[in-house]
Amino acid sequence: MVKVAIIGFGVVGSGVAEILTDNGAGISRKAGDPIELKYILDVRDFPDSPFADKFIKVFDVIEGDPEVNVVVETIGGVSAALEFTERALKAGKSVVSSNKELVATHGRYLLELAAKNKVVYLFEASVGGGIPILRPLSECMAANDILEICGIVNGTANYIFTRMVQDGIPFEEALRGAQANGYAEKDPTADVEGLDTCRKLCILSSIAFGWHLLPEQVPTIGITKITLADEAYADSCGMRIKLLCRAIAGADGSICPFVEPHFVSMKDPLGGVEDVFNAIKVTGDSVGDVMFYGRGAGKLPTASAVVADIIAAVRKHTLAGYQPWQENRPGDVMFAERFASRWYVRLAKGELTGAKKLSAHQVQGEESGWMTGPMTRIDLNAELEGKTVLSVIRVMD
Amino acid sequence: MVKVAIIGFGVVGSGVAEILTDNGAGISRKAGDPIELKYILDVRDFPDSPFADKFIKVFDVIEGDPEVNVVVETIGGVSAALEFTERALKAGKSVVSSNKELVATHGRYLLELAAKNKVVYLFEASVGGGIPILRPLSECMAANDILEICGIVNGTANYIFTRMVQDGIPFEEALRGAQANGYAEKDPTADVEGLDTCRKLCILSSIAFGWHLLPEQVPTIGITKITLADEAYADSCGMRIKLLCRAIAGADGSICPFVEPHFVSMKDPLGGVEDVFNAIKVTGDSVGDVMFYGRGAGKLPTASAVVADIIAAVRKHTLAGYQPWQENRPGDVMFAERFASRWYVRLAKGELTGAKKLSAHQVQGEESGWMTGPMTRIDLNAELEGKTVLSVIRVMD
Repeated sequence: MVKVAIIGFGVVGSGVAEILTDNGAGISRKAGDPIELKYILDVRDFPDSPFADKFIKVFDVIEGDPEVNVVVETIGGVSAALEFTERALKAGKSVVSSNKELVATHGRYLLELAAKNKVVYLFEASVGGGIPILRPLSECMAANDILEICGIVNGTANYIFTRMVQDGIPFEEALRGAQANGYAEKDPTADVEGLDTCRKLCILSSIAFGWHLLPEQVPTIGITKITLADEAYADSCGMRIKLLCRAIAGADGSICPFVEPHFVSMKDPLGGVEDVFNAIKVTGDSVGDVMFYGRGAGKLPTASAVVADIIAAVRKHTLAGYQPWQENRPGDVMFAERFASRWYVRLAKGELTGAKKLSAHQVQGEESGWMTGPMTRIDLNAELEGKTVLSVIRVMD
Repeated sequence: MVKVAIIGFGVVGSGVAEILTDNGAGISRKAGDPIELKYILDVRDFPDSPFADKFIKVFDVIEGDPEVNVVVETIGGVSAALEFTERALKAGKSVVSSNKELVATHGRYLLELAAKNKVVYLFEASVGGGIPILRPLSECMAANDILEICGIVNGTANYIFTRMVQDGIPFEEALRGAQANGYAEKDPTADVEGLDTCRKLCILSSIAFGWHLLPEQVPTIGITKITLADEAYADSCGMRIKLLCRAIAGADGSICPFVEPHFVSMKDPLGGVEDVFNAIKVTGDSVGDVMFYGRGAGKLPTASAVVADIIAAVRKHTLAGYQPWQENRPGDVMFAERFASRWYVRLAKGELTGAKKLSAHQVQGEESGWMTGPMTRIDLNAELEGKTVLSVIRVMD
């Protein structure tokens, strides 16, 4: 008999309780051992919940109960989540998490702590919600050297872009719509400034390349400055604007990680990813491009990934041995400014030499849009010196 | 030290030898044990191969060598492959296979035999080449009840459709082009008649629903009768023709499996899958739709999936416990003829009442194209009685 404790009864935590109850028989069969939800830790009261008898207020109960084998951490943030994860692992309990901020910041330490205590620390739900990505990347692609990770991993940002294009509304209005539909938080900073995307890239990159990439090492540009004019120019080239996270392996063993909006061809599978959907493209030296697509957020999709990890935890089926995260390597990060690509540029006035002028769409005054050839951001900045630049967006090739 | 024997040095087998050699250090680290290729069994001689010293001609050598822990079966077909797989499993060796025909036909028996001998039988490479699909479906989606499998799993058929649409050439010419480019065999029957797709559906379905679906239970229609007129009508509705394998769960526990060409909206992620690419969409009750996309064939992509399974075999990381295949259940198969959908119909002459007439494209004589409302094939056949029908293609909704 496996006893589970959930800490944090928010959207994901309550989804986990629901799935464990509704699909319990199949889940227990797959785990090879009956699974039972024993505790739910939350500071709030839920007197009307069907799980009302399971609520507790102090972590000590879980920590001190030898019956609890698996702790589900769905609190979010790093303070309480880190403390409880540490204490659970040290008490010999496996921990399953959907907390991207915690994994991106302390993943290496917690994986080591889990290994030391002969338990597992799993976090499939932290990237791509219910889309299987971390386990396939770790295991099914284990025979490959990974060349590139490129993903749309923030559903809120992608929903905003889709609304801008399909409804012709500006960023602020699309954001308000996302908030009204429950796709964006009241404080949308983490989504629209790219922080959430950055954290997910750190997790993907650490698994793909084997050393812990930290959020502060990833140059991150959000989507707040994208305008309808930019969308119109993208459309005129058969492209869409997408917020991408990328980590590209260099021949010298370095990696170049960055998060920024990109022009993406509609012929690329990523260009067709609309609304709140996520997609992660992984390029391996043997397999070429593979892509994983689905709903990257939401109560039940994310909870279903957490529950799959509970099953894996019961089977002591760790990922750590496949690709243990080594120490962070500051010297192995290549700056995105040196990564050459084409660029889309919008000018208030004047010409951009050596670039192709894009067909105009409802141009304001003397505005013009341009597509450069491949160059680094450093070289582009030199070209742009003295000009009044309205937008600069990288092109994915 | 793990010693591996490859049986069958064709495209995939030689790719496995290559990857084991080129990416050896990383593979051994991930397996937690050094992996060494010891034997290659093939009836042919390869005196100039870099692996020339490893070739043998009789299986007894592998069977009798206690050092060999993992046997890679890349022979294909069912006769020798079945015999060698049985003998290897009985001799206590794990077997890793890319052989969809063998798994589709004898998977249940071989999984049981492996379990009885406390070894593993893995076959990730048998569906979707290098695309991770069987393990994510078994493990990452383990908390879901699967509602539908829907996939483009034959690269040859998809390449032929893409050439027909993009180059405006008829089926026969597109097939010859596929053969000239090495995408189709000299005898293309298994690809163009849907048999290969059918076998892959049996494997996907057996994993998703937990009981062994057999190829003879899957109504299978190939692509040889698709014409440019059909492609033009599809285009006029914003659709593409794709050969799909589908298995749909009924509320009563039945499943409805079939392989046939479909009209697929270009707005559906499957509609945009071109050339030799494969994509498999899986619908779970919690996670909703997820899709796995990539190159479904080719030497190194397929071999990389085989090598990932070698690593998993070394770690005794079986899939069987997650979803053991139960006995075949003939009574639980719902006939595709009773599965309602819209239909595209092309008539030589006359009208189809209750259907929408499609805009005509270079119509021959009195030909016309129609889109019906949702109905079963049985009801459609009643409608078509007495008419001269040129094409009937199911629509995916």
